[in-house]
Amino acid sequence: MINIGIDLGGTTTKMALIDDHGKMIDKWAIATNTIDNGRHIASDISESVLKKMQQFNLEHSTVRGVGVGAPGFINMDTGFIYQAVNIGWKDYPLKEELEQSIRLPVVIDNDANMAALGEMWLGAGQGAKNLICVTLGTGVGGGIICDGEILHGVSGMAGEIGHITVMPTDGASCNCGKTGCLETVSSATGIRRLALDALDYNDSVSILRDIFESKGDISAEDVFNCAAKKDPLSSTVAEKAAYYLGFALGSIAVTINPEKIVIGGGVSHAEDTLIVPLTKYFKRFSLPRVFDACTINLAQLGNDAGVIGAAWLCMQKIKQGTMN
Amino acid sequence: MINIGIDLGGTTTKMALIDDHGKMIDKWAIATNTIDNGRHIASDISESVLKKMQQFNLEHSTVRGVGVGAPGFINMDTGFIYQAVNIGWKDYPLKEELEQSIRLPVVIDNDANMAALGEMWLGAGQGAKNLICVTLGTGVGGGIICDGEILHGVSGMAGEIGHITVMPTDGASCNCGKTGCLETVSSATGIRRLALDALDYNDSVSILRDIFESKGDISAEDVFNCAAKKDPLSSTVAEKAAYYLGFALGSIAVTINPEKIVIGGGVSHAEDTLIVPLTKYFKRFSLPRVFDACTINLAQLGNDAGVIGAAWLCMQKIKQGTMN
Repeated sequence: MINIGIDLGGTTTKMALIDDHGKMIDKWAIATNTIDNGRHIASDISESVLKKMQQFNLEHSTVRGVGVGAPGFINMDTGFIYQAVNIGWKDYPLKEELEQSIRLPVVIDNDANMAALGEMWLGAGQGAKNLICVTLGTGVGGGIICDGEILHGVSGMAGEIGHITVMPTDGASCNCGKTGCLETVSSATGIRRLALDALDYNDSVSILRDIFESKGDISAEDVFNCAAKKDPLSSTVAEKAAYYLGFALGSIAVTINPEKIVIGGGVSHAEDTLIVPLTKYFKRFSLPRVFDACTINLAQLGNDAGVIGAAWLCMQKIKQGTMN
Repeated sequence: MINIGIDLGGTTTKMALIDDHGKMIDKWAIATNTIDNGRHIASDISESVLKKMQQFNLEHSTVRGVGVGAPGFINMDTGFIYQAVNIGWKDYPLKEELEQSIRLPVVIDNDANMAALGEMWLGAGQGAKNLICVTLGTGVGGGIICDGEILHGVSGMAGEIGHITVMPTDGASCNCGKTGCLETVSSATGIRRLALDALDYNDSVSILRDIFESKGDISAEDVFNCAAKKDPLSSTVAEKAAYYLGFALGSIAVTINPEKIVIGGGVSHAEDTLIVPLTKYFKRFSLPRVFDACTINLAQLGNDAGVIGAAWLCMQKIKQGTMN
């Protein structure tokens, strides 16, 4: 059977046809049209899906259903989006809309959770049933899997690990309204801010400063590139980002005792420059039996994790007959 | 049907006969005989259970099985105790021993987890399927329930929330080998230590100091009693214990999004003197949507939580047919 995976983002909506063995038959993307509070998105998706099915001569009977990873606050049981700021939705019945137009069962979950399921099925989390996925991008996203099931919690907020407080005092303001969240220091945005602060705070010679002076700005990528070249200022910033991430992951690991931690997102391209100090701090802040049972891995599926996880969840839910 | 719940402690083993509706038919306790590395414990338990069944004219066919909450590191699937320091067991096949002598199916889990299940079934957690139970006693124990199931993690270490780091720098040493764990500041032992430090650090007038000078020592209970009487030094210590507990629970709640947090153990007798500042800090360190979905409650079952949870787990596992 074929499963359709969709990863709905603020600018692009990625889609894929994936069979039960995880083979990707085709993948494609359309722009996410956010005008008129996102009212055209569902019909754009349906149209694109139905056209693709036609192109591949797929009857409705050979397609199991559609999984959709969406941003924002979602009721996973009803597929109702309470609020998705980037998209413009408020109290939007996404599952219902898509089921009516595509005429296939639809499963909705949070985009970070779908990415975690994708890595569990075909990526760095393969074989593990207890898993933390962290996406270090503009923000810090999280998906937590315990005993093979996504943790949703009582109101769908589980896994919001970007908002674990890592600086209880003197932390920077976070978009969530708190201060000192993990996201303020270990996201790409946070790392850039830490680096700008460091450049401002002292006037040591640094190749990062040279970049700043020639480009007028720096990125988290610049920081890790310079840290990899042993630039002291950049290494201090990279170490700090890894310290706070290790602190947060230590607390989460003592709470859920995962087998694997999968690190994805742009910042994960720093590879060992991030993972080596991260592992050191994760060890310090977890427990020996927790640390020994867990490996830290780089995500393997990149931007495909979301569509793969969405296809997997659709397959699982429909096989188990736990669809609503 | 009758379920037998057992709560195996370092000094006493509590037992109870509990029916499927949660009615406690009888409860009793025997001393835990730890001599010879605990080799008499299993036979003491079996003897006591069989005698009690006889006394109540219970045939084996009317008893569903036995649930046992045990301390230490346990393989919950096999009922094998890797290590239980207080009891003297190392690589001990508890489930097998008990099943052979009692001739009933036996389910083993961690004692803190059993207490959490007890509160979920008949206590402060009733109705909630996403629950954190914290026991503030000599140490800090934890049991976490997500979607109605105990979180075990990959090696049975999930819920070890006493060992979440809350003081990343300058923390006191913990029994686990780390420093700055929650247990070092919010357990009865930790609160006593904080108070002794505070008495040592300044010489302000304090009714806690009067107690210290007359008794030669103080307890966490003294601290909260004095804090309830607005003693400034004691209030500062109580506030500090609540601050760190709120910090740790904030991180856990952002991770698992619970409906209820249940606080038990001796320190919970402080009631509002603990819960009011705890709620304030929990709000600061969680997210609005996480905080709004969650209530903090005092445990209701006291020392019975363990046997009740053990009876419940036995009933569930055998009903579901998920026994090993």
